Formats: sequence, structure tokens, C-alpha cells
Amino acid sequence: MPNIKRFTPTPDQLVYTFGGNPPIMTVEPGELLELFTEDALGGNVRSVTDIPSEKAKLPYINPQTGPFFVNGAEPGDTLAIHLLEIRPARDWGVSTISPLFGALVGTQQTANLQENLPERVWIYDVDSEASQVIFRALDSDFSTTLPLEPFLGTIGVAPPPFEVRSALVPDTFGGNMDSHEVRAGTTIYLGVNVPGALFSIGDGHYAMGDGEICGVAVEGATYTLLTVDLLKQTACPWPRLENDDEIMVAGSVRPLEDAVRIAHTQLIYWVMESGLSLTDSYQLVSQAATTRIGNVVDPNYTVVAKIPKRSLPPHIWMQGTHGKLREIAVPSPR
Amino acid sequence: MPNIKRFTPTPDQLVYTFGGNPPIMTVEPGELLELFTEDALGGNVRSVTDIPSEKAKLPYINPQTGPFFVNGAEPGDTLAIHLLEIRPARDWGVSTISPLFGALVGTQQTANLQENLPERVWIYDVDSEASQVIFRALDSDFSTTLPLEPFLGTIGVAPPPFEVRSALVPDTFGGNMDSHEVRAGTTIYLGVNVPGALFSIGDGHYAMGDGEICGVAVEGATYTLLTVDLLKQTACPWPRLENDDEIMVAGSVRPLEDAVRIAHTQLIYWVMESGLSLTDSYQLVSQAATTRIGNVVDPNYTVVAKIPKRSLPPHIWMQGTHGKLREIAVPSPR
Amino acid sequence: MPNIKRFTPTPDQLVYTFGGNPPIMTVEPGELLELFTEDALGGNVRSVTDIPSEKAKLPYINPQTGPFFVNGAEPGDTLAIHLLEIRPARDWGVSTISPLFGALVGTQQTANLQENLPERVWIYDVDSEASQVIFRALDSDFSTTLPLEPFLGTIGVAPPPFEVRSALVPDTFGGNMDSHEVRAGTTIYLGVNVPGALFSIGDGHYAMGDGEICGVAVEGATYTLLTVDLLKQTACPWPRLENDDEIMVAGSVRPLEDAVRIAHTQLIYWVMESGLSLTDSYQLVSQAATTRIGNVVDPNYTVVAKIPKRSLPPHIWMQGTHGKLREIAVPSPR
Amino acid sequence: MPNIKRFTPTPDQLVYTFGGNPPIMTVEPGELLELFTEDALGGNVRSVTDIPSEKAKLPYINPQTGPFFVNGAEPGDTLAIHLLEIRPARDWGVSTISPLFGALVGTQQTANLQENLPERVWIYDVDSEASQVIFRALDSDFSTTLPLEPFLGTIGVAPPPFEVRSALVPDTFGGNMDSHEVRAGTTIYLGVNVPGALFSIGDGHYAMGDGEICGVAVEGATYTLLTVDLLKQTACPWPRLENDDEIMVAGSVRPLEDAVRIAHTQLIYWVMESGLSLTDSYQLVSQAATTRIGNVVDPNYTVVAKIPKRSLPPHIWMQGTHGKLREIAVPSPR
Repeated sequence: MPNIKRFTPTPDQLVYTFGGNPPIMTVEPGELLELFTEDALGGNVRSVTDIPSEKAKLPYINPQTGPFFVNGAEPGDTLAIHLLEIRPARDWGVSTISPLFGALVGTQQTANLQENLPERVWIYDVDSEASQVIFRALDSDFSTTLPLEPFLGTIGVAPPPFEVRSALVPDTFGGNMDSHEVRAGTTIYLGVNVPGALFSIGDGHYAMGDGEICGVAVEGATYTLLTVDLLKQTACPWPRLENDDEIMVAGSVRPLEDAVRIAHTQLIYWVMESGLSLTDSYQLVSQAATTRIGNVVDPNYTVVAKIPKRSLPPHIWMQGTHGKLREIAVPSPR
Repeated sequence: MPNIKRFTPTPDQLVYTFGGNPPIMTVEPGELLELFTEDALGGNVRSVTDIPSEKAKLPYINPQTGPFFVNGAEPGDTLAIHLLEIRPARDWGVSTISPLFGALVGTQQTANLQENLPERVWIYDVDSEASQVIFRALDSDFSTTLPLEPFLGTIGVAPPPFEVRSALVPDTFGGNMDSHEVRAGTTIYLGVNVPGALFSIGDGHYAMGDGEICGVAVEGATYTLLTVDLLKQTACPWPRLENDDEIMVAGSVRPLEDAVRIAHTQLIYWVMESGLSLTDSYQLVSQAATTRIGNVVDPNYTVVAKIPKRSLPPHIWMQGTHGKLREIAVPSPR
Repeated sequence: MPNIKRFTPTPDQLVYTFGGNPPIMTVEPGELLELFTEDALGGNVRSVTDIPSEKAKLPYINPQTGPFFVNGAEPGDTLAIHLLEIRPARDWGVSTISPLFGALVGTQQTANLQENLPERVWIYDVDSEASQVIFRALDSDFSTTLPLEPFLGTIGVAPPPFEVRSALVPDTFGGNMDSHEVRAGTTIYLGVNVPGALFSIGDGHYAMGDGEICGVAVEGATYTLLTVDLLKQTACPWPRLENDDEIMVAGSVRPLEDAVRIAHTQLIYWVMESGLSLTDSYQLVSQAATTRIGNVVDPNYTVVAKIPKRSLPPHIWMQGTHGKLREIAVPSPR
Repeated sequence: MPNIKRFTPTPDQLVYTFGGNPPIMTVEPGELLELFTEDALGGNVRSVTDIPSEKAKLPYINPQTGPFFVNGAEPGDTLAIHLLEIRPARDWGVSTISPLFGALVGTQQTANLQENLPERVWIYDVDSEASQVIFRALDSDFSTTLPLEPFLGTIGVAPPPFEVRSALVPDTFGGNMDSHEVRAGTTIYLGVNVPGALFSIGDGHYAMGDGEICGVAVEGATYTLLTVDLLKQTACPWPRLENDDEIMVAGSVRPLEDAVRIAHTQLIYWVMESGLSLTDSYQLVSQAATTRIGNVVDPNYTVVAKIPKRSLPPHIWMQGTHGKLREIAVPSPR
């Protein structure tokens, strides 16, 4: 395994947008990076008595580690980011209910005239040995465990020229997709919009139900081990993902059915690269693809549609990049 | 195991609505029924050269077997239907692409000005031994197998008084939810709107991707073995589902995020029956519930949100009805 | 002017669905009918101290006058209903805020976890002389006047075969569109689904903002004068409307943008009957059509798109039916 | 009338975002500005034989004139922009149908698998004397006139800190709302996010149907005469608009019903400033407010809800700013 380049941002190095920031570091394709990511609340909410809306305020929400300038990346290329490992950097995670945020309350976008729910904080203990997090009810003495399933809520590149987008937003450039599929073992493909691609990561989740319903997962800092590659002169209009078994596409927009439409249309086009016709691909994807909701709380909603490679004609997907990157290294012991 | 009452409707006994039809048979709670269900195209599309829009026309789409009058069912009760087995009644299934139907083309509801896609038919062989169906591409010589995973696309009771709804519609009364969860091993709870409940079933699917994207699953006739029970004076505003491990709620409406909102809100209310507060339940469901998209093609879209019982406080869900029904019988050998 | 056939339903003659009821009367094309319509709350909410949810309960909401069997109407025809006059039958109207109803609170379909708003009733005096209704604030001593602009919130025919739809629903068959355009001077065209067409009317509104935002207009009983005609073997897939100056189409579905898509697509197709190409019609409608939101609170949302006839090529719209019907009579003095 | 400061940007001075650009000029409150705005296609599509997708390419779409630094504007203030006059700068306007753009075809966000419509261009003659534009059909010899009703499709300030948004987007900061209400005689209030506010304008429309259905209005360059003022320490979470007769709020988001919810909720809150209670305001707005759809084609959809001041309690809206600005000047003769 190649050497690992490690980076932990200082608080003032954290960024809150995709685009708009100078690169923090230059990366070569094939290099191994271990990056610290702060939690989405900036590590500032640590107790059930903290008031989230006072401890974490816009625009200082969802800090990202980056951006990284990938040597050789040019507009029109596709950046591949392979995640080798995502491990909790702390022994606790945090979730909250906050006013005007979440799928089941009125928000700035889905406005209503009703009273807000009260603001609350839950602290989860992390039991890495047992690969669990522990939920403790606030209003009764019930506690339970949930599987520790770390993933990055946010991963993306700089958006199209001129734009700078909040790290709270998922879109064509990736961003705050909140997809479980952005986990160890997955390669994420993102179309490059600016020289160097300028990718960032953040928003580690130790656990999350589908949709991030209350707006906040079990948020936690991570150490994330990854490596990157470039597909020169290869377009990727929406984020593609690949693991050993599946190819996937993320669509992000409102309403949610339009996110489904994006993900499935793009998956069908991708499957056609294996030689199937449009209608055969439409049919096969309709019967064999599954879809998972990333979020229904961000400025755009995200779904990821995926299909097993074994159901598809033999094909070297994305020039074999996933297989190449997964061979670079196995997670380092620690 | 009690005797099994078997019923195969003649073509003129098939019904196309929930509500509006006299009962075909009376059922006692605890009786075992084995019901034949015709496929959604009436069994009329059997070859890749058939033209679906000529062979299956509205309103004769999605025929249902029923309705069954459940002795003792009164408005305000909840009907529990436990599915013991769903097995293909034929060795082939069928899917189609048809004009103005499907998630990725213009429809009557999501209208556009573009040309329709061509009409196509796929016939799938069923290999029950291997528990597979076989997809054969129309425009190349590729074929592949998909898992045989039979479920009922449609199950429901009569809607609220005065209404008669097309069997193509999912709503509070169940109906055309197209949820994978309506499979063997699941108990479906439906609020009773009229005396006798008047439930029907149909729309067997041998396989389907999430969302029934092209509008048509691998459709097939089934023999479905089920039994029923009543929860007297127990409300069930949206369909609840339960299997050995999970409790679930189906929400059906457009846009899709509102279906998510229904399913999760109702799941939270249901979890509160175990003693958790509203906000604790909101938090726990947000971190532990998964959501699967039933359909994004019917007049209402359906999602099912579910949470493992093991993550919840100990509770006898729905008066223990699921456990009681699953003990009535194990599928008979044949 | 021909004789006027008058009809005031007794309470037990009121109906609550489109379809599912035997005709109350047979009508000949060209006959003049003056019909009493009860208000949407059944005339049962008459004081600011009434509790709407106790006085008006499902399924006894939005009573309709009808259905009327139109002699000669067959499936495949189009029914034209010309409204000559809609006048208040009472000197007061009523509006309410009720739990789980309205665009700016959680509902059964757009569920949330917040507390409901309180239930309230407003009684409006009707000043027919001044053509005004009077709003009186409940929580301060402010009062103001709004223009009296009577229209029918609900007008429709029986839905497609087998179905019976709640009178709360707008869809292809018309129904609860809550469109200001359904007023005196307008001809409404509805595709006939069953012999006799079986049209009904109700839900008189004395005034309403766009969208019927709180879910309840200034509701009032009416005397409505109308006449009908048939367009034999003429399809009308969505409701068309016509007045002296404009042609219009109503689209009803969720989300609201899909209602816009229906209305505009259908308007473009209708404009093409004047000889314009698809793309010219698309362009001209895009620049010249205005759109008014009927409701964003019913099971389907409604918009009406309209374009001035003077902007279009000369054409006899709908076989000249509107002009023919408006000549039958001028409102009788009384 | 004070002197008029005139500014016509050179092509390389045009900007394509809100935020992200240094100010082009500093403006004092009360100054009169006459600004040239280029059309949304950069003035590059001038003939029916031009191919829009070749002549106007992202990110060089919808050029803006600005940004202007308003002396004294600080975050937390509200900027008022009063439009005195918008007049065509050319004697022709242009509209197009382009692939993947418009409400009635598949787009990047509402994806489908159907063939695109052909690309087309319409050139409209402007008859300022008659206050008309002339539509000429491409596929037949029909022509017609539409009223010349100039407005600015795009007007906005810099978005919240760190973000830079495409000028194609409408949101809390204004932007590409495509609202007819942004016309001469209207004052637009926008919450200030950054020092100087940094407002820009562009996207002149000579005519447009509601919703900008095909995605492109009758686009044209303008000379726009305006003046500005500041409301210190006054929040304005969504764009407010005011003319002599009405107060209005713009909401921009998908789906369209959520834009309606924003506009009406904010309008209700604004009306409450006159002393009405929440529920009285909800009721009065529901009966008296009208709503016009700005666009259903941009990344966010826009509606503007408005209510006549005469229906409301006496109140000095927004500190009387509109009245003050309209007195500064009447359009200068030329």
C-alpha cells in the first residue's frame, strides 16, 4: 500500500461551500488520503442541554474538508473517488430536532402556520467494538442500539463555472446527498467542472434512517481513507457510484419523483453502454433496480437507483476504474 | 391446519374497483383461503407480438379477486390479512411499455408534448425450481435471470362510504400500492369502512424493481394463500404492515415526498403506542427506519416506511394479531 | 326565452359523489334549469360559535344538486353546460379554518407532527345591491368588504365506468375544481363517460382568493341558471371552458406543476385545431396564456389556463356551442 | 427630478450570477439610475434561422447588469428598488424552443426518455407606438399581436454569505423570478445579505404568458429606470413587492405548491403587521389574495401572491418606502 497522506483541518480551514475556496492541498491520482471530517454541527453540540440553534448557526453548518486540487483534472473529465474506510473519530455522535428543519415539520421551503416542535438534542454513544450506536430516549428511560454504519453525507466537486453552492445542497456536482451508498467500498464518479475538480468531503453519519427524516442523522466526525483517479474526457452528468456488485446513479431535485426520474433515466443511459437498446434497458432497469432515498430534507431531495452488475451484459463499467482503485490498498490496520 | 377454501374467479367474476361490487363470498376470521388472481393485463398479453393497448383496455385493467365479506367486520374495526404464500399460477410472466404510462415518459397526469416511446412486450419464463424469472432482450440476444419474488401489487378494502375507486389507485384503503412488502409472511392491516370490509386482491408480481418504473412489473397470475382476522373498534387510518421482524406503514399520494411524510408520521404515531414520546419517536424513527418506494406510476405514489421491532420498546403490536395469524397454519405441502 | 325548469333538492336528495346515484331528473338540450345548490357545509354552520367539525362531517361534505340525465348523451360525446346566472340564495356566507384542512397546515396528505391551528368560523354578510360580502375579524374590530363574485366550486359529470368519486375531488370529469372561471357567462365542456352524462353542481362560492388557501371559500347556497347542449362523438379529455373572449382548460392533479402541464398541453392541442402547428401553438400559448390557480387544497390541485380568442387564428371553437347557448336566453328579471 | 445616472455595460461587464462579482458602480439611496439590460440570450439570437443552443451557451445565459453597491446597505437591512420605467431597447424580441428546457418537455430535472422537440426561433417585432409585439407563426402564415408589457424577469441581491448563485435561479434573494409584477410602478423589497446589497437586474421580457411555459419569454433588451432606498435593520425573508394598490410576496421553490405556501404564509405574516391575528389574517388572505405564477421552468418555480391594500386595515407598509420612492420622480420625457 502506498503511503498515506493525512490531513486534519484546523477550524478556520473548514469550508462551507462547493466552489469558491482555494485548494487546501494538491492530490495526485492514486495517492491515499486520510482526512478528518468535522461533524455537521461543527462539533459544537455535545450535550442534551445544548441548544442547537445557538451552537450551530448558518452559514457555519456542515463544514467540509477540502477542497482538494486533483492534478490533471480538467472540465469534461470525470473524477473517481474511492472510499476505503470511514471510521468514527469520536466515541459519541449527535442528533437534534430544530425549528424549521426536517421532513415532518414546516420549513422555509414547505411553509406552514403551525407552531414549531421544541428543540431537542440526543447524544449517541459509539461502541465501535460492537459496531453499534446507542439511542437513549429523552422522555423515558428506554435505550436501544442501532448498527454503526458510517457514511459521508456530503461529497462533491466544484459546481459549474461561476457558481458557489452551500454545502447543504446536493445537485449534479454531488454535495449533500446523504446517501448510505457513499460508504467504504464505493467509488463515486463526479463530472469535473473546473480545473483540479476541487473536491471536498464532510458530514459523517454514524447511522441514519432513509431520508434523514428529522433533518439530522447521527452526526459524527470521521477519519476517511480514500483515493482518487481521473477518467479523461469522460462526461458524468449526475453522480455515478459503483461498488463490487452494483452500479448506481444519484438524482437530486424536488419534488422527490423527479429525483427518481433523474436517477433511473441516467441509470438506463449507463446500462445502454453495455449494448442494450433504450427500451430493453428501460425494461430491465424497471424490473431489477432498487432505489434508496438519501434525503427528503435538503434544498434538493436525493435518491440513488442501483442495479446489480450480474443482471447486466458483461461490460467494463467506467473503464474499470472501481476495480483499479480498490486494488490500490486495503484499509491500514490501526 | 384448518381446511383451505379455494376460489378461482371466472372471467366475469373479476372486479375492477374497490367498493361497488357485491361480495363474491363470505369469510370467517381464521379461515384459510387459497385464491387465484389473474394478472394485471387480464391474462390477455401472452406474446412479444401482442399489442398491449389492444389486448388490455380501460376499464378492464388490473382485475381483482373478490370482494370478500368478512363476517363481523364493521366500520371502525381493522381488518388483518395475513399472507401465507403467493406462488405463480403460470410458468410465464409479462411486462410492457405502453404509451402514456410509466415514470419516465409523459402521462395523462405528467403531460408533455414529446412523441411516445414505441409499445413493447417482454415475456419472462418462470423457473420456480431455481426461484428465478428470465429476462430476454428484444433488440439483442442478451438474457439474464432475476430473483422470483412474488408479491401482490394490489390489496385493499372498500373505500369510505359512497366512493368506488379504480383498482389502479392506492390510497388509505390499500389498493394498488405495488409494495414488495405485501408478500408471504406479512400481515396487512386495513381500516374497515363498510360492513364486511369487502377486501379484494390481485396484480401478482413475480419481480419488480423499486417504483415499478416503466409502469408494469413482471406481471403474473398467482395462487395466494391467506387468512384474516378482525381488530374490533381499532382504527387504522393508513395501511399498516407487520412481519416477524418489522412494523411498517404505507403512504400513498403525490408528490412522492408527501407519501414519505404520511408513512413516517403514521409510523411515528404507531411507535408512540410503545410508550415513547412524540419527539423521541420522531428521533428514533429518523435514525432506524428504512423506506422503500412501491410505485411512482399510479394515480397516487406509494412508499412503505418500516422499523425493526428489536429497535423499539417491548410492545404487543396490534394486539398480537400477526403472531396469532402466523400460527394458524404453515403453508401446506403440494 | 324558454320556460325555466326549477329544482330545489330536499336534504335527502343531496348527493356527495360524482357517479353512483340515480338521476334526479331528465334534461333536454336547450332547456333552462334554475337549480338551488346548498353550501359545502350543508348549510349547517351558521354562527361563529358553531364547531365546523361537529356540524359538518364526512362523508356529508360538499353536497351536490343532481345528477341530471341529459337526453341523448352517450359515452364519447361532450356535454356543454352554459351558466347564465349564479346568485346567492342567502344573505350570508360562511368560511372556516378546520383541523387537517387547508394549504398552510398539515393535512392527511401533507402530514406533519405539529399542533393543529384552532378551529374558527367567519360569517360574511352578503350585500347583493353593492355586490359585496363583508369580512369581520374575530380577534379585533376590523371589518372590510370584498367583491361578491359568485361561482360554482364544483361541477362535473359521472367519472369513467365503475368509478364513484367523492364530490371533494376534481379530475378529468370536472368536480371540485374551485375555479373562478366556472361563473355566469362561461360554458363548461365535459367528456361524457356514461349514458346521460349525469352532471351535478354545487359548492357555491360568493368570494374566494386564488387557491382556496385555507380550504374553505366564502361558501354559500345559490340559485344557478343554466342550460346544456351535446357535442356528439366529440372527445374532451379534460374540462374545457369558454366565454365570449377566451378558451380555457382545467387540469387537476398533484403536484401543482403537473396540473399546469395538463392545462397547457391540452390548451396547446386545442389551439392546434385552429390550424397552428404544434411548435407554433406551444410558442403562442407560452406568450399569451394566463393561468389561474383554482385550488391547492383538494385531493387534486386545479389550475385553469386560458388564452384570448383574439390572439388565435379564426376558428369556430367547439362547433360554436358557446355562442349558440348564450343566445338561448338572457337571465330572467325577478 | 434628480439627475439620472446612466449605465450600459460592455459585453465583458455582464455578469451571470448573484454574488461573486465586484460591484460595477456605487449607488446612493434616492439616486435615479437608467440601466441597459441585455436580453437573456446575450443578444445573440436574432434570426429564425439561428440555432439557439449554438448561439447562447451555459454559463453565458441570462446576463445581468450589475452588481450595484448601495451605500449604507448592511446585512439585516432591506433594500427597496422602485421601478419607474422599463422600455424596450430594441424593436425586436426573441423567443425559442430549446432541447431540455421548458415546462412541457423533459428537462435535466424532470427527466424522461422521449425524443426532444425540434429547436425553433421566433422573432417578434416591437410596435412601441401601439404597445404591441407581433407573433409570426413559423409553419403557417398566421400572425397576431400581443400586448407589450415589459417587465424584468430577473432582479436580485447577493445571496447569503459564501454562496454564488446562477442568474437562472430564483430564491430568497430574488433572482430569476419571471414575475409580471416586476414592472414599472412596483417597489421590490429584498433582504440584504452582504454589505452593499449588490443588486443586479436583467432578463427583460416584452411579453410572457403565466409560467414562462416554453422556458423563454419574448426576450428583449431594456432601458430600465429605477431608484433605491434602504430600510435599516428590517428583515425581509422572501421578496416583497408593493405597488400603489397591492402588497405582494414572491415564493420560489419546487414543487409549485410549496412556492404557493411560501408566498401565502409570508403574505399572512406581513398582513399581521397591520394588527390582524394569525387566524384572521389567514382567513382574509384566503378570500382576498390572488396568485400569479411567475415560472414553472427555472431551477425553482415562482409564484407571487398579492392582496389589495384597500381590503386591509390601515397601515404604513414597509415604513412608507413605496410612496416615498414613487414621489422621487416621474419618468423623464425623451
